[in-house]
Amino acid sequence: MKQADVLVLGGLSGISAGISCRQHYPDKKVILVRKEGTVLIPCGIPYIYGTVGGPQNNVIPDGLLENNDIELITDEALSVDREKKVVILRDGNTISYDKLVFATGSLPMIPPIPGVDKKGVYSVKKEFDYLGELLEAMKSVRNLVIVGGGFIGVEFADECRKGRDINITVVEALPHCLQMAMDDEFCTEAEAKLAETGVKILTNTKVEAILGGNTVTGVKLSGGMELKADMVILGIGAVPNTELAKSAGIELGFKNAIKVDRYMQSYTDPNVFACGDCAEKPSFFTGRPIGVMLASIATSEARIAGANLFSPVHRNSGTISVFSTMINGRAFGVAGLTERIAGQCGMSIVVGTAEATDTHPGGMPNSCMTKVKLVFAKDTGVLLGGSISGGRTVGEMINVLSAGILHKMTANDVVQFQMGTHPALTSSPIAYPIVNAASRALLAMRR
Amino acid sequence: MKQADVLVLGGLSGISAGISCRQHYPDKKVILVRKEGTVLIPCGIPYIYGTVGGPQNNVIPDGLLENNDIELITDEALSVDREKKVVILRDGNTISYDKLVFATGSLPMIPPIPGVDKKGVYSVKKEFDYLGELLEAMKSVRNLVIVGGGFIGVEFADECRKGRDINITVVEALPHCLQMAMDDEFCTEAEAKLAETGVKILTNTKVEAILGGNTVTGVKLSGGMELKADMVILGIGAVPNTELAKSAGIELGFKNAIKVDRYMQSYTDPNVFACGDCAEKPSFFTGRPIGVMLASIATSEARIAGANLFSPVHRNSGTISVFSTMINGRAFGVAGLTERIAGQCGMSIVVGTAEATDTHPGGMPNSCMTKVKLVFAKDTGVLLGGSISGGRTVGEMINVLSAGILHKMTANDVVQFQMGTHPALTSSPIAYPIVNAASRALLAMRR
Repeated sequence: MKQADVLVLGGLSGISAGISCRQHYPDKKVILVRKEGTVLIPCGIPYIYGTVGGPQNNVIPDGLLENNDIELITDEALSVDREKKVVILRDGNTISYDKLVFATGSLPMIPPIPGVDKKGVYSVKKEFDYLGELLEAMKSVRNLVIVGGGFIGVEFADECRKGRDINITVVEALPHCLQMAMDDEFCTEAEAKLAETGVKILTNTKVEAILGGNTVTGVKLSGGMELKADMVILGIGAVPNTELAKSAGIELGFKNAIKVDRYMQSYTDPNVFACGDCAEKPSFFTGRPIGVMLASIATSEARIAGANLFSPVHRNSGTISVFSTMINGRAFGVAGLTERIAGQCGMSIVVGTAEATDTHPGGMPNSCMTKVKLVFAKDTGVLLGGSISGGRTVGEMINVLSAGILHKMTANDVVQFQMGTHPALTSSPIAYPIVNAASRALLAMRR
Repeated sequence: MKQADVLVLGGLSGISAGISCRQHYPDKKVILVRKEGTVLIPCGIPYIYGTVGGPQNNVIPDGLLENNDIELITDEALSVDREKKVVILRDGNTISYDKLVFATGSLPMIPPIPGVDKKGVYSVKKEFDYLGELLEAMKSVRNLVIVGGGFIGVEFADECRKGRDINITVVEALPHCLQMAMDDEFCTEAEAKLAETGVKILTNTKVEAILGGNTVTGVKLSGGMELKADMVILGIGAVPNTELAKSAGIELGFKNAIKVDRYMQSYTDPNVFACGDCAEKPSFFTGRPIGVMLASIATSEARIAGANLFSPVHRNSGTISVFSTMINGRAFGVAGLTERIAGQCGMSIVVGTAEATDTHPGGMPNSCMTKVKLVFAKDTGVLLGGSISGGRTVGEMINVLSAGILHKMTANDVVQFQMGTHPALTSSPIAYPIVNAASRALLAMRR
């Protein structure tokens, strides 16, 4: 039997939790167990099918483990005996632990559509070989249907079109693609960018059946229309991978995620922690559990979990939910609450918007118009969220907003924000759209 | 006699102060007086000589004034009678005011070097026609000497080389270019990028005399060496433009900047405010006056001043000093204190560094290695400053740090920072260098 002080089960967030533990508790023996020989960068998966060219170009180097003196065991954890504090592996070996970390991530959601098990129907599993097969299979595909117009669906559509003679249709049940994440005007902009590439988008539409014999030949849509398809990719979301935790008697919560407190400690067992997609996460705003799954949240939670293992003092402030994407060369980012979600929560809000080129003066090359929308609480003036579309810098602009939300900046604070500006790198100081959007929101609050 | 409720004197920050006043006090009559027919974007001036092609492409549109119902009078304010509350213009007209805002900016510093008044010697005046003449004169220049290796000097060197067959030498008195702004390792990197373009850099060197008859033919350096030059550009800094304020009996402070309190109100007269380069500014950290002049600080102060005119409640938290630049395609940014300056202040600090590509996986196109260095107070763990070099996104990454400094994030807070990440837009969540630099600093604090 192997002995670990800290046993981590999982992929990306497992690595991050292991490194954090190593940094905080340098004397502890850390073992990481995972089934996969190679861990993929989760948010990089769509890019395997276009920009980066293959799964081998989208892996997290295991050097990270070696450099941090974390032992890697490639095997499947079959069961946990919490009384004996051991984990049993598929090869029969057992590992004892003092602290156990679940970082087991999520599995793609498979919708109960008739025909979903036909050949040619793929989900987005985070498995190297599976995703390699999908890439190989795509070579002969002429008609691709993507079920779900969330991030995964939209990014797959944008990547799969690159360098391929292929008809792609995205089928989304809601009125807009990306609607769970963004307000309508940004959804519309994103859809237009995607449509420019030739990708067809069907919104307000469900896939009711997958057609064909053993192999997919098409899909039947709500309303009765049929689409030809020699490949279907399911991108409708993911569910926490918590079967092992459940069988070990660990309490599950919202959508079967492991119930953890603000210190990432499981409700059930003080020696068991969880982080990432498999762990329940509270909203930064309401404290209620939310179902957002992002690699960035997972690593952030993993850092907290790793630091807390032998002294739970690092408090998770809850998930702001910050993300960005790039669709046909235009970037979109959202941090915190959209106008839609704030409205659904019944919040009285004030919105401010502004536009500016992301370089200045306008004649600078590679200039791109940036659109910013900020949402503030009407009573308190506190920043609740922001949405940005624009160029390459949107990914870090949205992080400026994340910092502002985390620290409860008010509209006044944002107006006074001290941003650095430079002709080749940012909007002009007088046009900086985050500040100007806040300024307009302030005006609106007065009315 | 014209009557204004608010009379603003000045350029860029004058516009910003006027707009802020309009937003907070919609009923007030606002008049802006300035000598210049056209206001240039200050930080865009070096780009007139390369990327943007001329001063006409680097102006702030006056539509901003019209849209905000601010009357523009193009004339020179000659004197202020504070008892009568009127300003007298060169054309003989007078304007009465209730509140007066000095936003008169700065003038280039002219060093007392023999020969500095020769033809062919230019300073960086923010004057449209003058800068147009400089552009025209540059057409026949073969040997350009730039005195001063600060931002202006380095950016001019990098721009003037573009599309010209010209020898450029930057002469800097300190051991490094940009040394007042950046730590040595970043200075070295910036110098190397500039040197790659063929620009020669002479550090630890002073220009002792400008040689020639009526027209410059060369410069004499400390140590006795002479350089040929048919043009010399002086980029050694600027001084507050406060002659008018002084003659009106307004108290000046540090380096002759107008003495203002945290509400941008002059010490001398409650009806007189000042903002931007002409106003004294306290350090965010020490509260002591500092001599940093940046367009972004000026507009931020202008927003505060405009909001405070009839109810001074918006407090200036002091200047963090956030800036960025681009040298031969590589971007550099600094927010707050460098290791050097923190050391000069006698602070016990802890430094953390990290590197990561600014996209992920590494195979994504247009990927650029980003270097982050963070400075924390050793006792409190509070973030004091950060430096970043990398690609296009550095300009907004440094603003993430600005938000962190403003809100007194600790190293622990930065480690828990919730950043959004995306393959095409940012570093990977596991490698995000701001977080990893903080994480290393935390480790160092433990030792």
